[in-house]
Amino acid sequence: MSRFWSPIVKKLEPYVPGEQPKLQNLTKLNTNENPFGPSPKALEAMRQVLGDELRLYPDPNADSLRETIAEYYGLTAQQVFVGNGSDEVLAHVFHALFQHNHPLLFPDITYSFYPVYCQLYGIPYEQIPLDDSFAIAVSDYRGINGGIIFPNPNAPTGRLLPLDEIRRLLEVNTETVVVVDEAYIDFGGESAVGLIDQFPNLLVTQTLSKSRSLAGLRVGLALGSPELIEALERVKNSFNSYPLDRLALAGAEAAFRDRAYFEQCRQAVIDERDRLRVALNKRGFESLPSAANFLFCRHRDLAAETVAAALREDGVIVRHFRHSRIENYLRITVGTAEQHERLLASFDRHFGAK
Amino acid sequence: MSRFWSPIVKKLEPYVPGEQPKLQNLTKLNTNENPFGPSPKALEAMRQVLGDELRLYPDPNADSLRETIAEYYGLTAQQVFVGNGSDEVLAHVFHALFQHNHPLLFPDITYSFYPVYCQLYGIPYEQIPLDDSFAIAVSDYRGINGGIIFPNPNAPTGRLLPLDEIRRLLEVNTETVVVVDEAYIDFGGESAVGLIDQFPNLLVTQTLSKSRSLAGLRVGLALGSPELIEALERVKNSFNSYPLDRLALAGAEAAFRDRAYFEQCRQAVIDERDRLRVALNKRGFESLPSAANFLFCRHRDLAAETVAAALREDGVIVRHFRHSRIENYLRITVGTAEQHERLLASFDRHFGAK
Repeated sequence: MSRFWSPIVKKLEPYVPGEQPKLQNLTKLNTNENPFGPSPKALEAMRQVLGDELRLYPDPNADSLRETIAEYYGLTAQQVFVGNGSDEVLAHVFHALFQHNHPLLFPDITYSFYPVYCQLYGIPYEQIPLDDSFAIAVSDYRGINGGIIFPNPNAPTGRLLPLDEIRRLLEVNTETVVVVDEAYIDFGGESAVGLIDQFPNLLVTQTLSKSRSLAGLRVGLALGSPELIEALERVKNSFNSYPLDRLALAGAEAAFRDRAYFEQCRQAVIDERDRLRVALNKRGFESLPSAANFLFCRHRDLAAETVAAALREDGVIVRHFRHSRIENYLRITVGTAEQHERLLASFDRHFGAK
Repeated sequence: MSRFWSPIVKKLEPYVPGEQPKLQNLTKLNTNENPFGPSPKALEAMRQVLGDELRLYPDPNADSLRETIAEYYGLTAQQVFVGNGSDEVLAHVFHALFQHNHPLLFPDITYSFYPVYCQLYGIPYEQIPLDDSFAIAVSDYRGINGGIIFPNPNAPTGRLLPLDEIRRLLEVNTETVVVVDEAYIDFGGESAVGLIDQFPNLLVTQTLSKSRSLAGLRVGLALGSPELIEALERVKNSFNSYPLDRLALAGAEAAFRDRAYFEQCRQAVIDERDRLRVALNKRGFESLPSAANFLFCRHRDLAAETVAAALREDGVIVRHFRHSRIENYLRITVGTAEQHERLLASFDRHFGAK
């Protein structure tokens, strides 16, 4: 604490991201990065702008990227907002689109940045318990609220909420904004983007960090009615005119245009996820059904913390959350076949094969 | 307006950055970019990370970059904060370090983003008039306040406040944070960084967009006591864990390490500034003394708006602010000798040589 801090800082408990260890040769399965590299066309597009023109500001409105994303999803550019990673986009969403007179609703087990944003912007919130199978029950979100947000698929559970359920929620919740955070949607879900034209209070957020292998580039987006997007633009233009650098603009646009590579990578991740699930099941784990690029699983005999610590000795890093209800689960990012071999070999070495 | 907007959005009047026209072959002297490209070593460092590792998140703490900057200025890494352009850094400064019980003080003629940040975070403010020579008089900043901020050199005037004056202000203003926004300091001023160890309430902000030719990369920084930096870290970690992408981290670090190129570019800008001043004087302009990479000047007979519109016909873009006291001034970025020739030829064509 310092007398120079503003009142808001004194109350903050910042978000703690998954560890980014600087050691080499880790098997890093803790922050849901894609095991495959970015589109070669995205890399080439960035190489093209890597030169003297970096002395010039980027386009503050990101027009070309927004038009590319709009075309991809059959929207207009006025329905697209982009930012410095979906975390920045979400921060602006919390600031711009949630009301303060009633609590924001989100699941009790979900992305742990949500309560941090609430603290930062003074938004009251209520955490709605997932059901016993760790699924979102939309009927629980029908109370008076200042907004609703949930990831789909949810994190860290990986469970998908079917589009019909989202539609059902939007049909009854028409007075406040509903945000569907689709960071992981490309690994097995159907996007809610198709509902945007029907529901002016629906906002969908996405990221290029997962299915497009660009976590290191920081690009996120929001899709919704022009009135929701305008609110985000107003906050963004009161915060930072140029959140996306020239390399990010070029790389993100090329990544969206390279559909073939995108399809190939996401299918490879889905295939590896299925193989990993089988291998873990053989070793006594059970996993929730996952539509994401990770498995959320527990072992029938071993404590999650014990397993995580053992794997770590061999340089295999997975994520363990010390939260009630999930303290016995591990979240394991889907990697390459080779990374999975290292994970499984480490498990077998510590706990015996099969 | 939309019923879905939060109360804060309804009141915002966003900042309007200098125009970024998409036409080719402009002589763009309106947003104070550096006419010279980035350090070749910075470009090479970015080329090295432009590959598959972009699939991985960047270092959320930017340790290596912060250590490099600390070493450059003789500070510790705990005295360095980095962000996505100095606009983002300033936004966090307004959120984290200014009090709300008394007005923030800043000059009446200054960076026009300051009142926008105040609106965004609900900070009251008072604009202190520059004196008749458009200089900051530090004796005017001695009232009760929730903080003080000014650019040095000031923008758009280009006038430098000597370090002794800043010290005098800090000696009397010990209870609130004083921010010296040094976006342009490398073009002729002495940084206040040397006062940081004496004054725990001094924060210095800088950018790589001007003297390091990286406006297109979005990197800014703040330097101050560990307690001030910790406040910024807390807000940043409640907003976006990864504001700097892998390319920005690598490029910024290499730019700071390449002192020879930096010295060569800033000296070239200073030399061109002097030549431009002489050429403009010959044509009936008078310029304020500038320690920045722009000249703030008015013509003895011609209206600023008329001159700006005439230059624009020839694709020469300079900045004109429709604010009282400065409506007859133009802010002209220092460019290359060739860009100046085009500027002067256009002026001569419209208004007659000399």
